[in-house]
Amino acid sequence: MTGKALLPELWTEILVPVCAVVGIAFSLFQWYIVSGVKLTADRGASSESEDGKNGNEDYLIEEEEGVNDQSVVAKCAEIQTAISEGATSFLFTEYKYVGVFMVLFAAIIFLFLGSVQGFSTKSQPCTYDKTTTCKPALATAVFSTISFVLGAVTSVLSGFLGMKIATYANARTTLEARRGVGKAFIVAFRSGAVMGFLLAANGLLVLYITINLFKIYYGDDWEGLFESITGYGLGGSSMALFGRVGGGIYTKAADVGADLVGKVERNIPEDDPRNPAVIADNVGDNVGDIAGMGSDLFGSYAESSCAALVVASISSFGINHDFTAMLFPLLISSVGILVCLITTLYATDISEIKAVKEIEPALKNQLIISTVIMTAGIAVVSWIGLPSSFTIFNFGTQKVVKNWELFLCVAVGLWAGLIIGFVTEYYTSNAYSPVQDVADSCRTGAATNVIFGLALGYKSVIIPIFAIAVSIFVSFSFAAMYGVAVAALGMLSTIATGLAIDAYGPISDNAGGIAEMAGMSHRIRERTDALDAAGNTTAAIGKGFAIGSAALVSLALFGAFVSRAGVQTVDVLTPKVVIGLLVGAMLPYWFSAMTMKSVGSAALKMVEEVRRQFNTIPGLMEGTAKPDYATCVKISTDASIKEMIPPGCLVMLTPLIVGFFFGVETLSGVLAGSLVSGVQVALSASNTGGAWDNAKKYIEAGASEHARSLGPKGSEPHKAAVIGDTIGDPLKDTSGPSLNILIKLMAVESLVFAPFFATHGGFLFRIFS
Amino acid sequence: MTGKALLPELWTEILVPVCAVVGIAFSLFQWYIVSGVKLTADRGASSESEDGKNGNEDYLIEEEEGVNDQSVVAKCAEIQTAISEGATSFLFTEYKYVGVFMVLFAAIIFLFLGSVQGFSTKSQPCTYDKTTTCKPALATAVFSTISFVLGAVTSVLSGFLGMKIATYANARTTLEARRGVGKAFIVAFRSGAVMGFLLAANGLLVLYITINLFKIYYGDDWEGLFESITGYGLGGSSMALFGRVGGGIYTKAADVGADLVGKVERNIPEDDPRNPAVIADNVGDNVGDIAGMGSDLFGSYAESSCAALVVASISSFGINHDFTAMLFPLLISSVGILVCLITTLYATDISEIKAVKEIEPALKNQLIISTVIMTAGIAVVSWIGLPSSFTIFNFGTQKVVKNWELFLCVAVGLWAGLIIGFVTEYYTSNAYSPVQDVADSCRTGAATNVIFGLALGYKSVIIPIFAIAVSIFVSFSFAAMYGVAVAALGMLSTIATGLAIDAYGPISDNAGGIAEMAGMSHRIRERTDALDAAGNTTAAIGKGFAIGSAALVSLALFGAFVSRAGVQTVDVLTPKVVIGLLVGAMLPYWFSAMTMKSVGSAALKMVEEVRRQFNTIPGLMEGTAKPDYATCVKISTDASIKEMIPPGCLVMLTPLIVGFFFGVETLSGVLAGSLVSGVQVALSASNTGGAWDNAKKYIEAGASEHARSLGPKGSEPHKAAVIGDTIGDPLKDTSGPSLNILIKLMAVESLVFAPFFATHGGFLFRIFS
Repeated sequence: MTGKALLPELWTEILVPVCAVVGIAFSLFQWYIVSGVKLTADRGASSESEDGKNGNEDYLIEEEEGVNDQSVVAKCAEIQTAISEGATSFLFTEYKYVGVFMVLFAAIIFLFLGSVQGFSTKSQPCTYDKTTTCKPALATAVFSTISFVLGAVTSVLSGFLGMKIATYANARTTLEARRGVGKAFIVAFRSGAVMGFLLAANGLLVLYITINLFKIYYGDDWEGLFESITGYGLGGSSMALFGRVGGGIYTKAADVGADLVGKVERNIPEDDPRNPAVIADNVGDNVGDIAGMGSDLFGSYAESSCAALVVASISSFGINHDFTAMLFPLLISSVGILVCLITTLYATDISEIKAVKEIEPALKNQLIISTVIMTAGIAVVSWIGLPSSFTIFNFGTQKVVKNWELFLCVAVGLWAGLIIGFVTEYYTSNAYSPVQDVADSCRTGAATNVIFGLALGYKSVIIPIFAIAVSIFVSFSFAAMYGVAVAALGMLSTIATGLAIDAYGPISDNAGGIAEMAGMSHRIRERTDALDAAGNTTAAIGKGFAIGSAALVSLALFGAFVSRAGVQTVDVLTPKVVIGLLVGAMLPYWFSAMTMKSVGSAALKMVEEVRRQFNTIPGLMEGTAKPDYATCVKISTDASIKEMIPPGCLVMLTPLIVGFFFGVETLSGVLAGSLVSGVQVALSASNTGGAWDNAKKYIEAGASEHARSLGPKGSEPHKAAVIGDTIGDPLKDTSGPSLNILIKLMAVESLVFAPFFATHGGFLFRIFS
Repeated sequence: MTGKALLPELWTEILVPVCAVVGIAFSLFQWYIVSGVKLTADRGASSESEDGKNGNEDYLIEEEEGVNDQSVVAKCAEIQTAISEGATSFLFTEYKYVGVFMVLFAAIIFLFLGSVQGFSTKSQPCTYDKTTTCKPALATAVFSTISFVLGAVTSVLSGFLGMKIATYANARTTLEARRGVGKAFIVAFRSGAVMGFLLAANGLLVLYITINLFKIYYGDDWEGLFESITGYGLGGSSMALFGRVGGGIYTKAADVGADLVGKVERNIPEDDPRNPAVIADNVGDNVGDIAGMGSDLFGSYAESSCAALVVASISSFGINHDFTAMLFPLLISSVGILVCLITTLYATDISEIKAVKEIEPALKNQLIISTVIMTAGIAVVSWIGLPSSFTIFNFGTQKVVKNWELFLCVAVGLWAGLIIGFVTEYYTSNAYSPVQDVADSCRTGAATNVIFGLALGYKSVIIPIFAIAVSIFVSFSFAAMYGVAVAALGMLSTIATGLAIDAYGPISDNAGGIAEMAGMSHRIRERTDALDAAGNTTAAIGKGFAIGSAALVSLALFGAFVSRAGVQTVDVLTPKVVIGLLVGAMLPYWFSAMTMKSVGSAALKMVEEVRRQFNTIPGLMEGTAKPDYATCVKISTDASIKEMIPPGCLVMLTPLIVGFFFGVETLSGVLAGSLVSGVQVALSASNTGGAWDNAKKYIEAGASEHARSLGPKGSEPHKAAVIGDTIGDPLKDTSGPSLNILIKLMAVESLVFAPFFATHGGFLFRIFS
């Protein structure tokens, strides 16, 4: 009944690593091009201005305005170095602390999983197919621990490399902005692509190698092999959690603190070099939005692959040992890299940005093009990478699935991602009425701005939720949890493009900061601001993808957990499940309360320090004395390291505590509750924050009659808009984006510990009954 | 195995109406006492000052300050009349529109339920006990429609009477404030008690009479009888929905609009008579916080009684026709009235308020005393009103329950309510650190105030959710859905006291407004402000109770729906349920987006009108010309009537659409999703809003060194606090409190239409499969 896939196993073994290597090579090539923008003073007009394909405005504004080019470039280089060093130093500190936690947690994994069969080294009957023999539970413990560490290390690498690229690109974007908005866009976008391809390809390659290495030990025991592999997802996401939370607190403490004193009290512009918190603010963009997000999306990717693999291993692919079909999730990702490569070329080499208003459409086209081509890609992979008919494990039974049905599962996830992206754009871009309405409400002050902004965020969840619901319904109906997992993979299949346009935002933000700090012309700042406004929207889109895919992937992981833990049904109408559901739905609020309070408190500390410096350093406001940047960097660093521990522990320990004391039914409820509630909180927080930021930028840019009637900078409506923007900061960059990790992480952790919970869980209920 | 209750049936038939009549009599007596405060000028010192039990400060401030007493009293009477007329006129307009909707919906109920068996008048086998014969589906249709109308009418009556009492009491509270804070407190509290007892007793009486009248037709068919009775809950809650939403939009549009121009732009105090929106604002308190809340809590009470009755009817009480045990829910409420009566006497006649700081403890004592005495009351009722052992319907099986187990179910609900009340007080009263921290964050501006306030709201859900979870677990484990329903009843058993302290808030708020408008001394305003600050906290506590009980009652209704619709399990891991869960969790956001946007838009219109009047009416700011109050009243009226339709339809139509097109499984998911998500949104919104309001009042009152360092009125921190307060207005008085109705209403509606869905539901899925 279930044949083999068309694609021979050998070809699969070649195709996957080749695509990964192609992705890495492409990434390096883009880096090479970006490095053509020299950060040494003697470059300028001679070497590059002649090859300018974008002939528009191909002169340096400084030259026109008679500013000394050499000193500007030197200044940019200096600022870049400061930002890069600050970011590197913070990440090392963060990794040091998280490293300790990871080692402890690795020990817990080993001990808990090893204890399932009393650390016996004897082989055992398999969990699902009792007639065959599987490797001992101790092996699962060992290999889960190894893959956990591998996942964490890959995640660290992803975040760190992303940060390095971004801090390499920011000053280069600033310099190119002198030559036109199109040039600057290309540099920022190429740099984003470096990060996107490196992460996507790296994640794929490490996973591929790990599978092949583990296979040497596991041989034909694929059930155990892929159970161990889920540790990779857990490692990736654990690291991502701390990266997002720590980075998020860092960046927003600095941002909010800098704005509150600088913009509001001292009336100096954003990123003014006189502001002591300005370096910390720019460092923050790189450690929070870049490194944090890199770790986060890598985690999503790793988990959705693991979720698909673990379900596949107990389906006909695994039972029949059809390696090509088994690696279907990796094939999807491989083709995704190629598709994204073509898509990127369209932005960098085929089309051309001539004006500010073309930036957002260009980025949106990236989404559309990659989705359309990828649909064909999925069709091909589904045709050659899968048997025409096969069976999928479906809570105790095997369900027959056709390959075209699985194609639909992947495609529905992919297109749902596009819809989420578009809806997010509609609600967060200042080209459309929602953000313009929010900006308009600033006329009556900050209060109406906040009311309208919150309402916008709430409203923006409606369509994405329906899109996610349809994806779940289609993929679940066709192919049970495997369908949901590949739908998540479909949404993440264009991750390289998604990351590219996502990373583009903070790079532009930094570029603007460097322009301001280097004392460059306000026309350059206008260009970088235009890039940044589009970046706010793409950041929101990126978060939309991250959240949407998190919903799908955690459902798939949840399903795998339930199967592995031997739960038959998760019936809402049982006391154990319903209390789990209620408490689970509360967790995103608890988590958000912690992270928002952390940002608030850290920002207050920052405000005090910035005020102190303004009051005690003579000549600071006049620009004759330099502020003490390092103390502000230290405040952000200390606050984020200290404050990331409690929310991190909340997420990491909840599944362990609930599973051990209350058992798998309650844990199932908690997972479902946090999933359905967290998605809403995360989406609304991200979109509200994005909308406020762009409402402010809308007033500042004054590109329309309406916008000018609200401005200029410093007007009462603008002040109200700044308040909204500040409130949105922790929502969109700390709480919101961390919540999708909360959802996924609790699910993958439950899956990894499922054997332990199935054996030792429900301690409390067993005592009392 | 299952004996009869100790209490003979005849005694039950006497006890319930007697308690209800006692409650009504007590309510009228309190009204009589309040009416002793004369609103005619010749009263004053002569008639009342001699009997002053609260001898403290027993003089009139006006006399001391030489203000003409007569003109002040006349002014108060005039303002009171304006507020009362405005409120009456609005409620009549609202009821007219909602009336049309109710008639239409009554027709839908009749048609849909009648169609279940094609409007046949033949008797049919019962749903649960197929061996016996029940009345035709047509009878259920007719009687459900009747009880729906009865519920709606009782709800209207509750809201309307509450409003009448509050507008009667507000000016009297103001006048008494001249004689000391204690006197004013007693008047406001007594008036609240009038409302509390009238509503509790009235709801009980109507339900009791309805059951007895329906019994004449139904005879021994209790299954059909109590199925029809659920219409009473639906009617009550439907009306409550429109009351809450319409009233909430009305009050906050006026409040926000008045504040934005008056306080922020024109720098005139709150409730200044020069502000054109001031009458609308004070009318709003009465139609939103009083009438809306009255309808709401009546709805909760009606629904929890109906949920308990419908489950009981298919348990041994119903099967054995044990009328006393069957009426156990009504017995609990009856005893509750007596307990609350004793509790009220403690506040009005035994203890005495001498200083501002004693107000909050006095209100808190009401909660504690009523809970402690009620615990004994429940024990007695459980002992005499229940057989020592009986069986409860539990999703297809009968579960044996002991009477002491049921006592625990009711008691756990009651005490969970107390815990929720205390936690809410902790997070919203400015006597504790959370609100003081929020006030402190105003130092750095509105942005940090909002961040801290949102974080506070998120954090405040943690303990209440655990309290609700424990109640559910205990009551569900002991007595399935019946346990959950009686736990909700336990939480609502002290509803008379809860409503009294809840209604006390808006009355005090109005009293302050009248003092300001009548140009009375600022010392009187300080006293009413102190009453009002405590009122904000009690309002938040009241909302906490409403939300907590809504969670329990909707779970019970949900359980009853599932049983009635013949669903065996609500398995999260089926596509139909999981998409329902996800979409259901989204509904509170959709609903909040609608209502907040409505308040925002209506407030903007109000702002324009108020500005227009200030700009075009000469002498308005100088106080020589009168503003045009009526236009502002009209704006609020029109906006709330227009804007309450879409959110109302969202809630009323969702169960019908989902049930008909997608079937009962998906509807189950929607109910569970909206329950677990809505509780969090509602709790956090109410508490955030309450905290902001009291943070502002904390700064204004300046009662501590810390508070004075943030003030006085008009300082930068105070301005930031005003912004927070304004944002909190729609959260705490429109969106938040409406959400608990959303949860309950969808559940009770599903239950009423369950026979229809079971027969005709799932249209879409049947087409495609």
